[in-house]
Amino acid sequence: MKNYRYRYQISFRAILVLFVLLSGGIGTYAERDPLPSWYDGAAKKAILSFVKETTEKSSPKYVQPGDRIAAFDQDGTLWTEHPLYAQAMFALERVGQLAPQNPEWKDKQPFKAVLERDHEAMGKFTEQDWMEIVAATHAGMSTEEFHTLVKQWLATAKAPRFNRPYTDLIYQPMLEVMKYLREKGFKTYIVTGGGQEFVRVYSEQVYGVPPEQVVGSSIVTKYEVINGKPVLMREPKPFLIDDGPGKAIGINMFIGKRPFAAFGNSGGDAEMLQWTQAGEGARLMMLVHHDDATREYAYGPAGGLPDTHVGTFSDALLSQAKSNGWIVISMKDDWKRIFPFEK
Amino acid sequence: MKNYRYRYQISFRAILVLFVLLSGGIGTYAERDPLPSWYDGAAKKAILSFVKETTEKSSPKYVQPGDRIAAFDQDGTLWTEHPLYAQAMFALERVGQLAPQNPEWKDKQPFKAVLERDHEAMGKFTEQDWMEIVAATHAGMSTEEFHTLVKQWLATAKAPRFNRPYTDLIYQPMLEVMKYLREKGFKTYIVTGGGQEFVRVYSEQVYGVPPEQVVGSSIVTKYEVINGKPVLMREPKPFLIDDGPGKAIGINMFIGKRPFAAFGNSGGDAEMLQWTQAGEGARLMMLVHHDDATREYAYGPAGGLPDTHVGTFSDALLSQAKSNGWIVISMKDDWKRIFPFEK
Repeated sequence: MKNYRYRYQISFRAILVLFVLLSGGIGTYAERDPLPSWYDGAAKKAILSFVKETTEKSSPKYVQPGDRIAAFDQDGTLWTEHPLYAQAMFALERVGQLAPQNPEWKDKQPFKAVLERDHEAMGKFTEQDWMEIVAATHAGMSTEEFHTLVKQWLATAKAPRFNRPYTDLIYQPMLEVMKYLREKGFKTYIVTGGGQEFVRVYSEQVYGVPPEQVVGSSIVTKYEVINGKPVLMREPKPFLIDDGPGKAIGINMFIGKRPFAAFGNSGGDAEMLQWTQAGEGARLMMLVHHDDATREYAYGPAGGLPDTHVGTFSDALLSQAKSNGWIVISMKDDWKRIFPFEK
Repeated sequence: MKNYRYRYQISFRAILVLFVLLSGGIGTYAERDPLPSWYDGAAKKAILSFVKETTEKSSPKYVQPGDRIAAFDQDGTLWTEHPLYAQAMFALERVGQLAPQNPEWKDKQPFKAVLERDHEAMGKFTEQDWMEIVAATHAGMSTEEFHTLVKQWLATAKAPRFNRPYTDLIYQPMLEVMKYLREKGFKTYIVTGGGQEFVRVYSEQVYGVPPEQVVGSSIVTKYEVINGKPVLMREPKPFLIDDGPGKAIGINMFIGKRPFAAFGNSGGDAEMLQWTQAGEGARLMMLVHHDDATREYAYGPAGGLPDTHVGTFSDALLSQAKSNGWIVISMKDDWKRIFPFEK
């Protein structure tokens, strides 16, 4: 009898738990809009039908969970890149910090322009100029020392205009897309032209993307044992430039699977979208167009700002998008809310 | 009333399901040995206590699930590498297939030695010789074409002595370790000196390791659009040599987290084990020693076979293992069963 009673108690609790789970689950599922910061438009509709097509078992374009890969560019796609990429700001500030130890920089380009805040000259920096700045500011230390520097910088640096930490300037609608895709069994990857080690410092906390799902540009590292402790020293030599065609190369190298969805905002993302689209089945290719000077910035075909050091959403990219059926997201018309800090 | 009855039915089924789950789960959990192909010895004990230490919430060395990373070398650690790595056999067979289109190879080293099956000369191949063979046999095609070649080869090639497909010659005890670690929330990575694209063709099917968890050596790829379709063409230039110090570099680049466990069998794995050990908390470093000439092969300190083209388990590595507390797995004394096909 006691035994029976005990069993009955377990059953009762089991029922209770099950009912709570079922009712709660079904209730929220039916009502919840997974993309509340998106206006009901073609872009939102495309995301919702892509997810339906690839994840409902009855769909002819159903994709096995292990193959559900989504790739996101970062600068300009997940967070603000104007007036300059956050990582470029980090590099420029480090030039200032390191200047006392490098007195020759006062007369040597590209450092001279940085130290004099000569924005016109900086606007004309070549890739080689940037590489010299990266070499001087991102190398010559261990990966751990670099992480510490990035963490310290992120904790104190403020983005111009918004006067907030850079990691506040992330796009709420894109966070919702990432979360929604993950809930539907997709692995979300960041595929960035920015530095892989830089982005990995905050990717998990900011985007929910763990370090192993960040593919980015990298410099050569060298294994050394210092005082009996192995370290990876960062060398002033580029390794992978994860931009343009490098994004398809990086995706293949790091993931070894073709994404079913890819999100970008510039010409540097075109090959990633092409590579995604070349696969079979349902594929989703989207480009964020910065056409909202009021709430963020307007550049590219929307005009407005000069396009210095930021990804170029050119007219050519716009026509490529049109002829390929890539979906252009209008910040102004598709997004109800831009940043998480806005209510 | 009808409603009540319906609810009662749901409850009854819920109870049934719960009881089956609970009794089944608890029953098998208590009885099951996760490593049945291992003798009860120091190696098996080390694995079990490492898992306990890192995964039981009450343990002071508990590791968050997201940080549970385990790295496995492949050749000689997960499958047989004697008398030659499978991938080297693939390359040599392709030299034979491509010879008619390359008549000059008859008089040109290293191809001449391969075509004449001059094992003595092949035993003396330098890294440069091997690179020439890789360039001739692994490059000049798209990644997709390469995958097809590898698949075809794996389906037909037989390993000498055992006269079985190469993918049959995997170590049952290591499969058990991988499976056990995965059940305990670890992500298992293959970190191989072999070709990343080669291993990814079969890693999921053979080891349960998906492509994105295979870190390996790679050659440069180039993005090209051919007949409107983007492809990645394999170029005859090395990109990452994922061996020796390259394994620590590869782990940092691809995973961005330090493994808590690493398994190898040769000097090419030493830096991976060092890198693993240099982290805090509980770390497990193990080396497979091939000392079983009867069931597999004996080489390294166990002597026996000459060490051509296979990882060197040297006396130096053995003393490094001793002084660092790395655990040496004896195939002969630690493994009850070597291959899955053995009963």
